[in-house]
Amino acid sequence: QLYRLVRPLHAADHADLIERYSGRARERLVTVLGRYFDPETLTYLDDRVREEVIPLLDEEVLKLAFQKLESDDAVEILGELDEEEQARLLEVLPESERAIVEEGLNYEDETAGRLMQRELVTVPEHWTVGQTIDFLRTNAALPNSFYDIFVIDPARRPLGKLSLSRLLRTKRPVLVEDIMQTDFHKVPVVMDQEDVAMLFRQYGLVSAPVIDAHDRLLGMITVDDVVEVMNEEAEEDILRLGGVANDDLHGGLLNTTRSRFSWLAVNLVTAILASGVIGAFETTIDKIVALAILMPIVASMGGNAGTQTLTVAVRAISMRELSSTNALKFVIKEMTVGSLNGIMFAIIAAGVCWLWFGDWEIAAVMALAMVINLFVAGLSGTLIPITLERMKVDPAVASTVFLTTVTDVVGFFTFLGLAALFLI
Amino acid sequence: QLYRLVRPLHAADHADLIERYSGRARERLVTVLGRYFDPETLTYLDDRVREEVIPLLDEEVLKLAFQKLESDDAVEILGELDEEEQARLLEVLPESERAIVEEGLNYEDETAGRLMQRELVTVPEHWTVGQTIDFLRTNAALPNSFYDIFVIDPARRPLGKLSLSRLLRTKRPVLVEDIMQTDFHKVPVVMDQEDVAMLFRQYGLVSAPVIDAHDRLLGMITVDDVVEVMNEEAEEDILRLGGVANDDLHGGLLNTTRSRFSWLAVNLVTAILASGVIGAFETTIDKIVALAILMPIVASMGGNAGTQTLTVAVRAISMRELSSTNALKFVIKEMTVGSLNGIMFAIIAAGVCWLWFGDWEIAAVMALAMVINLFVAGLSGTLIPITLERMKVDPAVASTVFLTTVTDVVGFFTFLGLAALFLI
Ligand SMILES: [Mg+2]
Ligand SMILES: [Mg+2]
Ligand SMILES: [Mg+2]
Ligand SMILES: [Mg+2]
Ligand SMILES: [Mg+2]
Ligand SMILES: [Mg+2]
Ligand SMILES: [Mg+2]
Ligand SMILES: [Mg+2]
Ligand SMILES: [Mg+2]
Ligand SMILES: [Mg+2]
Ligand SMILES: [Mg+2]
Ligand SMILES: [Mg+2]
Ligand SMILES: [Mg+2]
Repeated sequence: QLYRLVRPLHAADHADLIERYSGRARERLVTVLGRYFDPETLTYLDDRVREEVIPLLDEEVLKLAFQKLESDDAVEILGELDEEEQARLLEVLPESERAIVEEGLNYEDETAGRLMQRELVTVPEHWTVGQTIDFLRTNAALPNSFYDIFVIDPARRPLGKLSLSRLLRTKRPVLVEDIMQTDFHKVPVVMDQEDVAMLFRQYGLVSAPVIDAHDRLLGMITVDDVVEVMNEEAEEDILRLGGVANDDLHGGLLNTTRSRFSWLAVNLVTAILASGVIGAFETTIDKIVALAILMPIVASMGGNAGTQTLTVAVRAISMRELSSTNALKFVIKEMTVGSLNGIMFAIIAAGVCWLWFGDWEIAAVMALAMVINLFVAGLSGTLIPITLERMKVDPAVASTVFLTTVTDVVGFFTFLGLAALFLI
Repeated sequence: QLYRLVRPLHAADHADLIERYSGRARERLVTVLGRYFDPETLTYLDDRVREEVIPLLDEEVLKLAFQKLESDDAVEILGELDEEEQARLLEVLPESERAIVEEGLNYEDETAGRLMQRELVTVPEHWTVGQTIDFLRTNAALPNSFYDIFVIDPARRPLGKLSLSRLLRTKRPVLVEDIMQTDFHKVPVVMDQEDVAMLFRQYGLVSAPVIDAHDRLLGMITVDDVVEVMNEEAEEDILRLGGVANDDLHGGLLNTTRSRFSWLAVNLVTAILASGVIGAFETTIDKIVALAILMPIVASMGGNAGTQTLTVAVRAISMRELSSTNALKFVIKEMTVGSLNGIMFAIIAAGVCWLWFGDWEIAAVMALAMVINLFVAGLSGTLIPITLERMKVDPAVASTVFLTTVTDVVGFFTFLGLAALFLI
């Protein structure tokens, strides 16, 4: 009954259904999908859910599934499993399949080698359009879907790329070498997946050939898998900016707690450090209660302004829009923006201080501290991520904590320091 | 000389070059590209840069450019210009072109109607594969590139979708209706671009037909444009989370300053509100300096914990992974995670307090305040974005400010309130 209901759905929707349930309900759903389990479903599942689903499946079903899957999907699924499970599944695979998958697993994670499928269509350059079409009509072992044909020389070096739409609009006797595109983009097998994604985006590609160090064609990458990568990378950035490394909706309660704990621990240290600054001015606070009240405002404004700058910088680095050519320009711009906003908020905040406490000296201290902290926020919001990027550290993951420490410490220090100098 | 250097580059690279320079240098570059200006370059340019480049181009060049561009690109470019410039360019276009572009501009921004191109290939269902291929070979007015052919009935209602790879591997006498895919996804012309992007991602599409309210085929959307949308939307989210609405690398100094000013103004108000709480406990602070020193720690921990939860929630809502079915489960999980971390940090922070001030009463107040604030952070980090989403407000843009206000106020209030109750 349930089976009849879910059968007409797409594999991606089956995966979503399985993800939505947990425990006994999920088990029952997988059992119902049972023998007719669409192997594609596995490729759409979240890693952690997949780990739980695979043991529920029949050995026969799994074997059949892996035979039907394209090599990139098989490699992706096996790559996420623990070694024991990986070895068990590899043994189930037929000889030829296993060799390809094992080779795929040898490429580093998050590189073109892991994204490419081995199934693709190649033709020699002396073939005609007619020959090519006849070949496609008689060859049974074609990829499930493809958008380009690759023209290769006898050593399997790619000479050109031919889109199917170009092939289809050309008359039979024309040679493929006369219509192929020769200025196409080749993806080295070791290229990082983020660079692959940028390449596809920059040039609006739907598929690209993958080559080894000797310029020999190894496989192709298709846009659907690149879209996944783009999404993964955007997710990574946005989560990291929030201080949530590798966390996600499907993580267990304890795992989630633990992964967040480490991040909060770092924050505790920096918060104590910042509070230590207040402690150093103990006598100052004791004398003027108003200062203790106003103090968090300067720090908070700096933190927020710095985060704005930081977010723009991190995203620009990710999109390859911030390079050494325009870095200096960017830093100067952000410092100026910070100073301008600093001046405006200095005026507003000083006005509020004056109205609140009727003390123009406190207002002056507030104003000066605000300008300094927002200037520092603009400077550190750009320099921190740029420096981290130069040091090959992901700026999205590490910048926030550095930045808030800087803005808190500078915020408290300038505010209380100026107060100590001029008010006491 | 310069021209010979840049000519072999792709239009997307030309656009990047133009974006990288400004003022006189940019003008010179555009002049050099001059008459041979590739119209595709316009589609790759950032909106604001494009506004500056278009007036630099010759009327003749622009006219030629718009004739070469596909309708979606023409609509996109004109849609971003101000009305005056738009009217001027529309007049330059030939009659037939103009009608299509004007129709495109009538669809709302960020909908399928704006993304679709009118150029596409349709065939009646009674045609054979052979007839279709012959039609493609003789028809001059084909789209630049396409990946699917759409099978329609006499009223232009789409009956099926036929991928070029499927067409190519089929023998000439077979009817298209026997090989076309009938369970394909149709995009209503009013669909939001974010939903279009999700559809492409979920089902790994490379192109999709766009239909009007009467199920008649209007155009098609291709994956390269959807990739742009995905990128735009991810950027929007990540920037908004940082409190940077619509800001970007190409924005002018004053515009950037102004757009950030409004956000910082909101933050100033909430920071004053939070500090008002400290003011209400004036006598307490005056008596125990240690409290003033420790106070920001509780608030900061709550803010960071809440942001973690919030980031996961916002991203999950964006990816359509958080719905009414699993919202309660998510809220409970986050509350539990918050409480667990709250307990652990309460122990650590209490220990630090005790070592620092040697006062177990202050340590106890610190611990209790920490648990309460981290519990509240988990609760508000989920409830705020879910509520905003229900109220049709983008949770990415508004949640952060609500959240920090809640965690600051609750942090200061519980800490100083408990101190007032038990220490004085
Ligand atoms: Mg899914
Ligand atoms: Mg992966
Ligand atoms: Mg694939
Ligand atoms: Mg895939
Ligand atoms: Mg990565
Ligand atoms: Mg990244
Ligand atoms: Mg803060
Ligand atoms: Mg660009
Ligand atoms: Mg737009
Ligand atoms: Mg297009
Ligand atoms: Mg486009
Ligand atoms: Mg949007
Ligand atoms: Mg959005």
